[in-house]
Amino acid sequence: MKKIPVSILGATGAVGQRFVELLARHPYFEIVALSGSDRSVGKTYAQACNWVLTGSMPESVREMVILPTNTDLPGKVAFSALPAPIAKELEPLLAANGYAVCSNASALRLTPGVPLLIPEINADHLAMIPLQHTMLGWKGLAVTSPNCTTNGIAMTLKPLDDAFGVETVFASSMQAISGAGYPGLPSLDILDNVIPYIQGEEEKIQTETNILLGKIVNGHRLDASIQISAHANRVSVVDGHTIALSVKFKNKPGVNDAIRVLEDFRGPAEVNEMPSAPKHPIVVRYENNRPQPRRDRDAGDGMSVSVGRIRPCNILDLRMVCVVHNTIRGAAGGSILNAELLAAKGFLD
Amino acid sequence: MKKIPVSILGATGAVGQRFVELLARHPYFEIVALSGSDRSVGKTYAQACNWVLTGSMPESVREMVILPTNTDLPGKVAFSALPAPIAKELEPLLAANGYAVCSNASALRLTPGVPLLIPEINADHLAMIPLQHTMLGWKGLAVTSPNCTTNGIAMTLKPLDDAFGVETVFASSMQAISGAGYPGLPSLDILDNVIPYIQGEEEKIQTETNILLGKIVNGHRLDASIQISAHANRVSVVDGHTIALSVKFKNKPGVNDAIRVLEDFRGPAEVNEMPSAPKHPIVVRYENNRPQPRRDRDAGDGMSVSVGRIRPCNILDLRMVCVVHNTIRGAAGGSILNAELLAAKGFLD
Amino acid sequence: MKKIPVSILGATGAVGQRFVELLARHPYFEIVALSGSDRSVGKTYAQACNWVLTGSMPESVREMVILPTNTDLPGKVAFSALPAPIAKELEPLLAANGYAVCSNASALRLTPGVPLLIPEINADHLAMIPLQHTMLGWKGLAVTSPNCTTNGIAMTLKPLDDAFGVETVFASSMQAISGAGYPGLPSLDILDNVIPYIQGEEEKIQTETNILLGKIVNGHRLDASIQISAHANRVSVVDGHTIALSVKFKNKPGVNDAIRVLEDFRGPAEVNEMPSAPKHPIVVRYENNRPQPRRDRDAGDGMSVSVGRIRPCNILDLRMVCVVHNTIRGAAGGSILNAELLAAKGFLD
Amino acid sequence: MKKIPVSILGATGAVGQRFVELLARHPYFEIVALSGSDRSVGKTYAQACNWVLTGSMPESVREMVILPTNTDLPGKVAFSALPAPIAKELEPLLAANGYAVCSNASALRLTPGVPLLIPEINADHLAMIPLQHTMLGWKGLAVTSPNCTTNGIAMTLKPLDDAFGVETVFASSMQAISGAGYPGLPSLDILDNVIPYIQGEEEKIQTETNILLGKIVNGHRLDASIQISAHANRVSVVDGHTIALSVKFKNKPGVNDAIRVLEDFRGPAEVNEMPSAPKHPIVVRYENNRPQPRRDRDAGDGMSVSVGRIRPCNILDLRMVCVVHNTIRGAAGGSILNAELLAAKGFLD
Repeated sequence: MKKIPVSILGATGAVGQRFVELLARHPYFEIVALSGSDRSVGKTYAQACNWVLTGSMPESVREMVILPTNTDLPGKVAFSALPAPIAKELEPLLAANGYAVCSNASALRLTPGVPLLIPEINADHLAMIPLQHTMLGWKGLAVTSPNCTTNGIAMTLKPLDDAFGVETVFASSMQAISGAGYPGLPSLDILDNVIPYIQGEEEKIQTETNILLGKIVNGHRLDASIQISAHANRVSVVDGHTIALSVKFKNKPGVNDAIRVLEDFRGPAEVNEMPSAPKHPIVVRYENNRPQPRRDRDAGDGMSVSVGRIRPCNILDLRMVCVVHNTIRGAAGGSILNAELLAAKGFLD
Repeated sequence: MKKIPVSILGATGAVGQRFVELLARHPYFEIVALSGSDRSVGKTYAQACNWVLTGSMPESVREMVILPTNTDLPGKVAFSALPAPIAKELEPLLAANGYAVCSNASALRLTPGVPLLIPEINADHLAMIPLQHTMLGWKGLAVTSPNCTTNGIAMTLKPLDDAFGVETVFASSMQAISGAGYPGLPSLDILDNVIPYIQGEEEKIQTETNILLGKIVNGHRLDASIQISAHANRVSVVDGHTIALSVKFKNKPGVNDAIRVLEDFRGPAEVNEMPSAPKHPIVVRYENNRPQPRRDRDAGDGMSVSVGRIRPCNILDLRMVCVVHNTIRGAAGGSILNAELLAAKGFLD
Repeated sequence: MKKIPVSILGATGAVGQRFVELLARHPYFEIVALSGSDRSVGKTYAQACNWVLTGSMPESVREMVILPTNTDLPGKVAFSALPAPIAKELEPLLAANGYAVCSNASALRLTPGVPLLIPEINADHLAMIPLQHTMLGWKGLAVTSPNCTTNGIAMTLKPLDDAFGVETVFASSMQAISGAGYPGLPSLDILDNVIPYIQGEEEKIQTETNILLGKIVNGHRLDASIQISAHANRVSVVDGHTIALSVKFKNKPGVNDAIRVLEDFRGPAEVNEMPSAPKHPIVVRYENNRPQPRRDRDAGDGMSVSVGRIRPCNILDLRMVCVVHNTIRGAAGGSILNAELLAAKGFLD
Repeated sequence: MKKIPVSILGATGAVGQRFVELLARHPYFEIVALSGSDRSVGKTYAQACNWVLTGSMPESVREMVILPTNTDLPGKVAFSALPAPIAKELEPLLAANGYAVCSNASALRLTPGVPLLIPEINADHLAMIPLQHTMLGWKGLAVTSPNCTTNGIAMTLKPLDDAFGVETVFASSMQAISGAGYPGLPSLDILDNVIPYIQGEEEKIQTETNILLGKIVNGHRLDASIQISAHANRVSVVDGHTIALSVKFKNKPGVNDAIRVLEDFRGPAEVNEMPSAPKHPIVVRYENNRPQPRRDRDAGDGMSVSVGRIRPCNILDLRMVCVVHNTIRGAAGGSILNAELLAAKGFLD
C-alpha cells in the first residue's frame, strides 16, 4: 500500500515531537512536511528542534527543512499540534483547502460539525462529517481529539455508562508536567510541590466528556447530560495523568459488575484492527495501589487507559482511579488513531 | 515558671524527631526522657537516632540515654509517637499510671472517653475528661490528635460548618511522603509517580472529621453527621498534604461569604495565647494557584492551614483546596498544642 | 534450537525482576525456576513478588512456585541476584555442583579464577575458566558482572585505553535510586536531595575498573594499573547512572580523536551477534547537555553506554560524561550477556 | 541608627525576591526602591511579581511601585540582581553616579578595580576601592559577590589553603534548579534526570576561585594559582549546591588536620559581628552521608557552608563534599553581607 502523505504542524514542540516519533514508523502514513514558527523556518528539523523525548530524533526527519505553518503544506493529512490561537485561525483554512485536519488542539473541539473523537468510544460521531461539508463548505475535513485528562475519564466512563448509566462524577486529577508542553512548567514550581490549578482544564473535562459520551442524531451531536465536577492538579510526574473518580449511576452496579464491563470493553471491530489501537483499550488493575503513572502509562504502548481501585463509594456508588498517557493516548497517539479511523472509513481516499 | 517535665515515646522515629525538635525549645515543657525500641535502649539519642529532619539534632538531647518504652518513664506528660499496635497496648497503661498522655497515634482516637482534639476547633471536648476518669479508672488522662489529612480538612470545614452547615464532602488528597514515616515509602515507589492508595487513610478521614466537628453532650461525644467520601493519594512532596474539597452546605454560601468566615476564624481566646498556636489558624490564599505544599506548608510555623481556590462547584456548592503541614500541625505540633491546652486548663497542675 | 533451562536466584528483588523481565522473552534461555527467601518459598511468583518495574509481570512466570535458594534448583545456568552475604556462601556451592553461575552479586568478583566480564571489552577473560576448574575443583563454573557504575566507566575507558593508554581518572557519579534495590533508599532521603555517599561503591569502582581493563596472562588476571579516584553520589533519578570523568592518557588525544575511537568501538564479532548485544556498545552524544539519564538510559535497549561532553580538561587531558542503565547493562542485562557469551563459547553445551 | 536606604534592581526575579525577603527585615538597610523591566514598571510589587519563594511576599513591599531600572533610583546602595547583559551596561553607570553597587551579577566580577568578595575570606580585597576610584573615576563604588558554586568551593578551600597550600582541585558539582532563576529550568528537563551542563559555570569556578583566594598587592589583585578543573551538573534539588572535591596540597594534611582548620575557621572579628554573618562560616559534618542539600542548606540561616566526608584521596591528598545555599550565601545573602562589610568599613557613610 502506498503510504498517505502527512504533514505535522507545530512539529518542534513537545506534542509535535510525539507526532514525529509515532509517525516516523507508521505503516499507513509518511511524513512529508514539518512546519514551525518563523524562528524555525528554513532550518533542518535537527537544527530547529530541541528534542525533549527519550532517545534520539528519528533519522528520517533530521534533514527535513521546516516549512512555514500555512495552507501551502504538502500532504493529505495535517496533524496539528498548534497552539490554540494559531490553531483557531489556521485549522479551518486547512480544512477548507482540502486537508484532512487531525487536530490535538482545543480550537475546533466545540465547533458544530467537527467531531471530537476517541475511536473506541464514539467512532459513530464521524456521521457528522457530511454535515461538516454542508455547513462549513470545506473541501477537506477536520476531526479533533479531546483534552488529555478528559480522554482518560471518557474512556473509563464509556463502558460503565453503556451498562449502568452514568449520572454524576466527581473527578480530581493529578497531571503530569508534560501536559504543559515545553518549556512549559518551570521546575521551581513543581519539584517538591503540587500546583492545584491548570488553566481551563476543569471546564474542558466537564464539557468534553459530555460530548464524547453523547449521541449523533441526524448528523448532529446530542451531548450526554452527565454532571461532572473536576479539580485539576499538577504533580511531579513526567508523563501520565492519574484521575480519582467518584461516580453515581442510574442503575447501581456492584464492584464486580463494573470490573466485568471494563474488562470486556472493546472498540468497534474495525477500530481494533487499526495499527495504533491497543489490544485492550482499558486495562483493569487488581492491586490495591494501582494504577500508577510511572508503572502504567505505557500500557498498550501508551494507548490503553488503566483503571483500578474500583470500590464502593460511601456517598455515590463507586470510586475508582484511572491513568492515561497524556502525550500518547491523550495527545499525538489519539490524533493518529483518529486519522487511522478516517483512513479505514475511506475519508482519506 | 518551672517547666513541666515530659517524655517522648518513640523518640527516634520521624514523628518522634519532630516532637524533639519542637519541644527542645518549648517555653512550658522540658524533655526529661526519650524512649525507643530495644535496639536503641541504652544508647545516647545521638547514637540511636538517624536524624532525618533538616539541620542538626538539638544539642540538648544528644547525650540523653534512650529508655525502654514502658510505664516507668519520668515526666508528667507522655508525648506518644508510638506505632499503632504498641500505642494501643501502652497508652492506656500510661494514663492509668498517672501520665497525661498526648498521643499522635491512632490507637485511642475512637476510644469512648478519650478526646480527639484540635484546640482551635473543639477545645470543649475536654469536657470528656471527667467521664474518662470515671469510665476508665485512670489516674492520669489521655488526649489524641487526629490523622494528618483529617486535620487539614476539619480545620477548613469547622468555620464553614458553624456558619453554613456542612452536609456533604468529597475529598481527594495528595499527601507528602513524610506522612509514611521513616524509612517509610521506598523512593522507587514515588519518584516520577503517584500512589493512589494509603492504607486506612480514607476511613480515618471519614470517621475523624465527624468526631472533630461533633458536640459534647453530658460529657459524651455526639458526632457530626457529615457525609464524607475520600480518595487518598501519595505524591512526590516532602512535607505538606494538599486536599481538594467539594462541599455541599445546608445554607449555600457565596464564595465571598466562605472566604469571610475562613478569614475571620479564630480559636477560643485562651487557645490563641498558647505558644504553639498560630496567629491565624487558617490562612486564605487569593492567588489562583495556591495553596501549594512547598510554598504554604510553613505558614504559621507549620501550624496554620492554608485554604485557597475557593470557587463555585457546578454540582455541590463550593470547591476549595487546603494545605496542612502533616508532621507539624498534623502530628507533633498538634499534640503539643493539645498539651498546652491541658496546661492552660489546669490538667497538668 | 532447544532453549537452555535457567534459574533465577533471588527472583523477587529488584534485580531479580529485571532478570525475569529480560529472560521471559529470551531466544536462548528458558526460565525453569525462580528462587526466593523463606518468606516467599511455596508461593507463586505473582503472590510472592511485589513487581516494581514498569507494566505487568510476564504472564509466563506468574504461576511459577518459588523454590528455596539452594543447590537443588533445576536448570543449567543459575542467574544470581542474591544479596552479597548469601551469594558469597551459595554461589561457590552452585558452581561446584555443576551450574554455570552468572552472577550480578559482588561476592565472587575478586575471587581468583572467576572472570569479571563485560563481553564487549574483555571476553578474553574467559580464558580463566580452565584455571577455575583446576584451582577451585568446580564441576560447573562462575562468571560475574561488574558493579553498575564501574560498568559505565570501564566501557567508556576501554576504547580510549586501547588507543591512548589511560593513566589517571577522577570520577564523580550521580547514581539512580534503583541501584539501591527495593525497598532500598527511603524516599525521605532523596526527594529534593543528594546523598553524597554509597557504601563500598568508590572502592568497587577503583578495583573493578582495573580488573576489567586488565589482561590475561597464562590464564591469570593481570590487572591494569590505572589510578582511579571516585566520588559516589545518589541523586533523584529512577534509572541510569551518570558519571563525570576527568582523564589523563599516556598519549594525549585530541577531542576528535577520542570521539572517533568511541564511535568506532565494537566488541568482538561473535559478541556483536549475541541477542542482548546492542548495535553500538557506545553511543556518542554531540549535544552540549547530553548524555542525560532519563533521555539516554534506554539507548540500545538499555545495553549501550552513552558518552558525551567530550572536551579538554585544563589539568588532565580530557573530560567527558557517561550514562549507563544501571539495572540493565549494569546488572541483569550484563549478566545475561555474559551467559550468552558462555553459550557462544560452548561452555553451556 | 538611621537605616541606610537601598534599592533592589531586578527585584521581581528569583534572586531579586531573595534580596527582598532578606532585606525586608534587615537591621541596617531599608528598601526604598524596587526596579523592574518595562513590563513591570508602574505596577505595585504585588502586581508585578510572581512570588516564587516559600510563604508570602513581605507586607512592607507589596504596595511599592516598580521603578524603571536606571540611574535615577533613590537610595545609597544598589543591590543588583540584574541579568548579565543589563548589569554590564548599568552597574558602571550606577557606580559612576554615586551608588554603592553590591552586585550578584557576573558583569563586573573580573573588572580590574572591582573587588569580588566573600567577607569572611577576602575582606582585605576592599583595599582595591581607592584604586577603583582612581582608575574608573566613579563617584560611587562597586563590589561583587561570586558565582554560587564558587562560593561554596572558595569558602571550603580558604582555611585549607591558608594552612596547607592548595595546589590542585577537581570539582564536580550537583547544582540546584533555583540557580537557573525563574522560570529557568523547564521541569521536563530535570525531573527524573541530570543535566550535565551549565553554561559558563565551569569557567567561572576556575577563574573566580583564584580571584577569591588571591592577594592584594598595592591595591591590585594578585590571583592565586590553584589548578581547578570542574564538572558542573544540574540535579533535581530545589535549593543547595553540592560539590565533590578532590584536593592536592603543598603540605599534605591528615584528615583530622583538615577537619581542625575547617572547624576553627572564622572570618575577621568585624565580619563575625555583622548581622548576616553566620556564627560558623563553615559547619563540619561528621556523618558519613552528609552534607546533603535538603538537610544542610539552611545551616546558619543559609549563610554557612557545610563540609563533610573529609577522607583521603587515593590519587591526590583529600576528598571532601561541601553544600552551599545557592540563593542565600551564593547570591542575595552574599551581596548583603558585602554591603554590611562596606557599612562596617565606613564606605556607606
